[in-house]
Amino acid sequence: MYQKIKALSKDYYNETVTIRRNLHHYAERGWLETRTACLIATQLEKLGYEVLCGEDIMVKEARMGLPPETILHLNYRRAQKEGANPKYLEKVKNGMTAVSGIYKNGKGPTVAVRFDIDALSLIEEASHDHYPFKEGFSSCHIGAMHACGHDGHTAIGLTVAKILMDIKEHIHGTVKLIFQPAEEGVMGAKCIAESGFLDDVDYIFAAHIMPQESQNYDLYLGMNESFATTKLNVTYHGVSTHAAESPQFGKNALLSAANCIINLHSIPRNSDGQTRVNVGTVHAGTGRNVVPETAKLEIEVRGLTSELNRYMEIYARDIIQASALMHDTVVEIEEMGKAYALECNSSFMKEIRNMCDDYLPDLKLSQKDLSPLGGSDDFSYMMTRVQAHGGKATYMKLLTPVIASPHNSAFDFNEKVLEKGPRILSSLVYHLLK
Amino acid sequence: MYQKIKALSKDYYNETVTIRRNLHHYAERGWLETRTACLIATQLEKLGYEVLCGEDIMVKEARMGLPPETILHLNYRRAQKEGANPKYLEKVKNGMTAVSGIYKNGKGPTVAVRFDIDALSLIEEASHDHYPFKEGFSSCHIGAMHACGHDGHTAIGLTVAKILMDIKEHIHGTVKLIFQPAEEGVMGAKCIAESGFLDDVDYIFAAHIMPQESQNYDLYLGMNESFATTKLNVTYHGVSTHAAESPQFGKNALLSAANCIINLHSIPRNSDGQTRVNVGTVHAGTGRNVVPETAKLEIEVRGLTSELNRYMEIYARDIIQASALMHDTVVEIEEMGKAYALECNSSFMKEIRNMCDDYLPDLKLSQKDLSPLGGSDDFSYMMTRVQAHGGKATYMKLLTPVIASPHNSAFDFNEKVLEKGPRILSSLVYHLLK
Amino acid sequence: MYQKIKALSKDYYNETVTIRRNLHHYAERGWLETRTACLIATQLEKLGYEVLCGEDIMVKEARMGLPPETILHLNYRRAQKEGANPKYLEKVKNGMTAVSGIYKNGKGPTVAVRFDIDALSLIEEASHDHYPFKEGFSSCHIGAMHACGHDGHTAIGLTVAKILMDIKEHIHGTVKLIFQPAEEGVMGAKCIAESGFLDDVDYIFAAHIMPQESQNYDLYLGMNESFATTKLNVTYHGVSTHAAESPQFGKNALLSAANCIINLHSIPRNSDGQTRVNVGTVHAGTGRNVVPETAKLEIEVRGLTSELNRYMEIYARDIIQASALMHDTVVEIEEMGKAYALECNSSFMKEIRNMCDDYLPDLKLSQKDLSPLGGSDDFSYMMTRVQAHGGKATYMKLLTPVIASPHNSAFDFNEKVLEKGPRILSSLVYHLLK
Amino acid sequence: MYQKIKALSKDYYNETVTIRRNLHHYAERGWLETRTACLIATQLEKLGYEVLCGEDIMVKEARMGLPPETILHLNYRRAQKEGANPKYLEKVKNGMTAVSGIYKNGKGPTVAVRFDIDALSLIEEASHDHYPFKEGFSSCHIGAMHACGHDGHTAIGLTVAKILMDIKEHIHGTVKLIFQPAEEGVMGAKCIAESGFLDDVDYIFAAHIMPQESQNYDLYLGMNESFATTKLNVTYHGVSTHAAESPQFGKNALLSAANCIINLHSIPRNSDGQTRVNVGTVHAGTGRNVVPETAKLEIEVRGLTSELNRYMEIYARDIIQASALMHDTVVEIEEMGKAYALECNSSFMKEIRNMCDDYLPDLKLSQKDLSPLGGSDDFSYMMTRVQAHGGKATYMKLLTPVIASPHNSAFDFNEKVLEKGPRILSSLVYHLLK
Repeated sequence: MYQKIKALSKDYYNETVTIRRNLHHYAERGWLETRTACLIATQLEKLGYEVLCGEDIMVKEARMGLPPETILHLNYRRAQKEGANPKYLEKVKNGMTAVSGIYKNGKGPTVAVRFDIDALSLIEEASHDHYPFKEGFSSCHIGAMHACGHDGHTAIGLTVAKILMDIKEHIHGTVKLIFQPAEEGVMGAKCIAESGFLDDVDYIFAAHIMPQESQNYDLYLGMNESFATTKLNVTYHGVSTHAAESPQFGKNALLSAANCIINLHSIPRNSDGQTRVNVGTVHAGTGRNVVPETAKLEIEVRGLTSELNRYMEIYARDIIQASALMHDTVVEIEEMGKAYALECNSSFMKEIRNMCDDYLPDLKLSQKDLSPLGGSDDFSYMMTRVQAHGGKATYMKLLTPVIASPHNSAFDFNEKVLEKGPRILSSLVYHLLK
Repeated sequence: MYQKIKALSKDYYNETVTIRRNLHHYAERGWLETRTACLIATQLEKLGYEVLCGEDIMVKEARMGLPPETILHLNYRRAQKEGANPKYLEKVKNGMTAVSGIYKNGKGPTVAVRFDIDALSLIEEASHDHYPFKEGFSSCHIGAMHACGHDGHTAIGLTVAKILMDIKEHIHGTVKLIFQPAEEGVMGAKCIAESGFLDDVDYIFAAHIMPQESQNYDLYLGMNESFATTKLNVTYHGVSTHAAESPQFGKNALLSAANCIINLHSIPRNSDGQTRVNVGTVHAGTGRNVVPETAKLEIEVRGLTSELNRYMEIYARDIIQASALMHDTVVEIEEMGKAYALECNSSFMKEIRNMCDDYLPDLKLSQKDLSPLGGSDDFSYMMTRVQAHGGKATYMKLLTPVIASPHNSAFDFNEKVLEKGPRILSSLVYHLLK
Repeated sequence: MYQKIKALSKDYYNETVTIRRNLHHYAERGWLETRTACLIATQLEKLGYEVLCGEDIMVKEARMGLPPETILHLNYRRAQKEGANPKYLEKVKNGMTAVSGIYKNGKGPTVAVRFDIDALSLIEEASHDHYPFKEGFSSCHIGAMHACGHDGHTAIGLTVAKILMDIKEHIHGTVKLIFQPAEEGVMGAKCIAESGFLDDVDYIFAAHIMPQESQNYDLYLGMNESFATTKLNVTYHGVSTHAAESPQFGKNALLSAANCIINLHSIPRNSDGQTRVNVGTVHAGTGRNVVPETAKLEIEVRGLTSELNRYMEIYARDIIQASALMHDTVVEIEEMGKAYALECNSSFMKEIRNMCDDYLPDLKLSQKDLSPLGGSDDFSYMMTRVQAHGGKATYMKLLTPVIASPHNSAFDFNEKVLEKGPRILSSLVYHLLK
Repeated sequence: MYQKIKALSKDYYNETVTIRRNLHHYAERGWLETRTACLIATQLEKLGYEVLCGEDIMVKEARMGLPPETILHLNYRRAQKEGANPKYLEKVKNGMTAVSGIYKNGKGPTVAVRFDIDALSLIEEASHDHYPFKEGFSSCHIGAMHACGHDGHTAIGLTVAKILMDIKEHIHGTVKLIFQPAEEGVMGAKCIAESGFLDDVDYIFAAHIMPQESQNYDLYLGMNESFATTKLNVTYHGVSTHAAESPQFGKNALLSAANCIINLHSIPRNSDGQTRVNVGTVHAGTGRNVVPETAKLEIEVRGLTSELNRYMEIYARDIIQASALMHDTVVEIEEMGKAYALECNSSFMKEIRNMCDDYLPDLKLSQKDLSPLGGSDDFSYMMTRVQAHGGKATYMKLLTPVIASPHNSAFDFNEKVLEKGPRILSSLVYHLLK
């Protein structure tokens, strides 16, 4: 069967590439993946999956970092014009863009695979050195670009969906293919996890396309050294006044902000491991001679473990509050994203290694199970939920040569990974449910 | 002759109102008063004045707070479309918008009168309670509004020009009527003062429309308690880096900015008198997870005397520089505006009081010569220049009932002042040169 | 009678000098004026005054800035050894060092005169250029020195006591001579004012020895431009930890203190008038490699009016509290001193001027009633209390040549003022009660 | 021969204990180990070593963190009274307290062993639960206490000296026993390293008494995870002024200090590893109403590698300088201590492990070579010097049960280590030179 899966992956390769390029061309940012979600849902339906999406698998209020109403509305119109399937458009509009395809065959474990679908806020390189531009599939949405491989993930996911249907009688148990919005900014996983949709899952996994290093490995079985993180938007509201005539009548939102910035950076280091804090943007005030009424900050904290991130977040929230009190302003804190540290189950990684050794011997596996992530990924939210209910989880690296680094406007990956990816993930689903 | 001037002011009243409303409708902000300047120059020429403008009376490099090239260019096109006189348009384009009308008759002193012509960055109230809107002459340039009476000042100036020509044989000496751009933000006077155009002036004065208080005075002979001020734009340039992966490779422009903000506010108080400092706006950073590469601040300092302002400016510049060094960033400081404190000559004010007592007895003069300004006005630059060359100067208040306070989007003044204004100023010119 | 008072002042001059030098030699700092208080009480009793002291006229809990128990105890022993009258020693020990002599003769107004009795924390100049050292009466208490003339004030007070007793039949009403401890640091007046002892007073006044200026005036009738002020001791309590091994377990009291310092200095300026803030001392931490557990700060705020001081104090207290919250420390605030701004009654000053013009014509009075104080004096507490109950108050300047400025270790005043002082003050008491 | 060394260690055990207790009783802090140094020198001389001390092996100017002259002088007198050998007293006085015993026998490698000799600034526990107090050998120098085992190290060193002399014919090469002052605060090693005394050394090692963990190991062969560190004393010099009368004339040293404190804590985290910063103490200002003229800070930075420490030190020095410029003060930086990160040679540790396996089989060795240090030790200075000249180095842990943790006033160690210590170190010298 593993051979058959390998062959199917090869057969579907051209289709996978086509889909990936289509998604790349119509790149959509977090919560705005409306056309993408409709495309996925339509495909899954056609393949015979039970399709759940929008409110079926998301807690509306648990979405973080949602764009304003107006943007959501304009986006709906845009997706409509681009031919999004009206049946699903109504369900996924207004930032309800999660989609899942479910296939159940008798008794057996439940296996979930997650694919993230959103693009980044980048203006794609318009140069003939940039392959997508040269080939004419670079983003037609200015300011949105798939520069982190999620177009590949989604395409891989749809091919996995096809392969599993091709071998469906050999699968015993339940498969949940989950297409998650808004991974960038770690905003989207929480609302799916909190819906309870994962609570019966025995195994969950995902794989992220990553730059291949000199060793030419195909796969890492898990990741570590990821940062747990919390993203906060902070707004100080003060009272403006003419800065020369009556400074004493103002409440200076910018003084609160400046204190917040400096003190956030002075949170004590932690001997348990690396921590991070950043104030990425500040926008404050209306005019030179007016005491600033408002100051808006985009903040993030991180820690190499969920515990370290909690230490940072608690301390940061104290500072944010105290900075308001310091100059008698009022502060509003909005949680824009959150992720835990990745903790892959070693027994599960061992099982995957055994499968590869036995049935996929041509794959070049890393010797160590784990490879550092460095950044943050909110798949950790799903992993933690599944693990809390007794399930097992891992987050793999799918290695392939890349041009430029992820989150760069010239990013591109070698599409060969689009054959390897469906093969590995489908094999693993089959392996767990055979 | 004072009676004749009074009568002329009355005769011209309707014209003055018409011009004021025209200017109000076509409100133009600092350095963009292209249509206004052309209108003034054309009128002065028609009346028989020698017209100097643009480079004739301005030092190009001494202009502060100039808008970017693109804005200047678009503005030129706009003024063109609005019918600006091409003869002058070429001379005043690109922010060279100062205009002066000169009349010389034999030997005698030189008297200068200054009128400021620019509007503010405000969106004018669109309500039927707002007289200019109701009467259909509110600003047709969205985001530009005459909310500080400069439309009135300019209209008064043009009527003064007419009256003086009507009595030109009775004037012995030289008259310079100066129409100054970019008073708001105290940006425009310096470049005129530095041109040397005022160096032969024996008397210079101006009058600002101000809210009439309960005493119903018509005029204050001078102002004090104005702030000397310096306006600075400060940009910190650092190095961005991914805030989680390698914070140590960044140079955080925002940390420099935050230190600058807090420390500017902590400049020691000065026992010689009131001082001020404000950071009015801050814009920094590009994304939550990126160490900010750039932070831009709009800053002003003030002092009740020029000496106190110098104390503040020197201390502030130390702080601005030190904040760069603190986090190894590079700082760029741009001077955007500057004004001295007003120091009206008491002998000059006495002379005006005598004239009013003797010849304009129906005017209600304040008992005290001086009234506080509160804010800053760069007419101080011209006054200081004239005084440095042995001349005398004052800056009067022309009182009239107003709706809402200056710099408010609902500001409006009672147009009766448009009769009183030309009368007082023309009488004074005549008085000094008769 | 005014002539008689003049003569008595002259007769007592040598005694006054002797007492002043004795007090100068035994200089005692705030709340430790035990020997001084006993000396005063004994003298007043001998003269026939009803003597109230300690708890009779002080609210124990309202004393501010009290030294620790141990110091008070050692001080008691010291005074004992120096021969303090045991009868009064028991009453004034432990910082209960206020003394008042009361004389009542029939009906009439109540007049209070206040003399401050405490020395400063200074090591007196030991140089033959320094008169008290040369003459052998410089302070025998190292670290305590009369460098603000309070030794003179007290000596004047005791001579006033003598003179008034010499003319007692001519006085109709009540006299309260009040010897106040702990004026330096504005700590001592509050507890007397709050006792209610002043609530029946119709007139209260005091006079401070001050440097004579070029005009050679003898007297100013009042003072203004004094600062209302509040003195606070602030202690941040954190948790110490080894700075390398586990910085995260600490709560850094010094980070709270540093934020407090910078932000106190950044309290917005106030357009109603001059304000001040100072953090005079900081002591924090125990060792280089330990996160500081404690940080102690001595702080003061001031304002040219009591209202401005209140603005500063309220804002400062917010900052002090917020700085604790900022780094999760606990803060303790102790009020160490407080004074209002001086507001002398002009009708009262006029009355004094009339008396001087009529009866003390050889005195050289200033033309203006008021002279600026510059600093703060808690006699304002007593004045405010008397004024709140309908009485009148003023605080005069007694001018005399001085060597070095007050609060300097080489300070000394010309003793001629010890003749003029008793004369003026006694005359005024007589004038009000004759 | 290893057996003989074992027997000698046992024979000398009581003497070792006696010396250790003597040293514990006469605990001397860094640079003040005058009596200790004389005792060591006298013993070494008696045993037949060539004794070098003071300027022989120290660069006077390279000593860091030296106490003031007065303290050094008083200390000299104290040591004199306590019977220090006058021959050596003159050589080691004034903080020249390093001593070395050299033994040379023919050709062969040079082996150096280092023992640190200084005590800590602690008041020793005076409780019968505290063994040294109960047994009557607790410190007679109040404020100095051996709470880090250096008394044990010195006693072990002197016993090693005896053992090596007992087997001196079997040693071929050169032995340098180095007794180092001022290890606490990492102040003393640098001046020895810079003298060149170590430049011919082929092997250098030392062993620190450490708490035994549950595994009951006797020895770790090396340490890692030590912090490289730099200790700085920083003094800001400003200008004082009366805080109310003329705040503008001051230059506020405390504002510089407060900025320094907050910004030091905000140095960006480093993804290469753990870093530290601490401002341990601050003392500033003279009085509440005086703008502080001086502020003194005790600062340290650390990094898990010498490179990380360099990153911290360079950034910190920028901040320290910029904070002066920020408020126009002058800053003085004094380097008080410095240590590199420990890098033990693995080949050397392997050699020691082989010796133990072969000849000291009853010792319980840890399985891993390295154990974390956590803090800092300036033996790293000596190691780095030796390694730079091609030699090898390690820093071992001698494990023994302890009461309370090091640097605690109740610290005490089980003296059994005084038998094990000389045995291991002597064996290793013999092993390298046999």
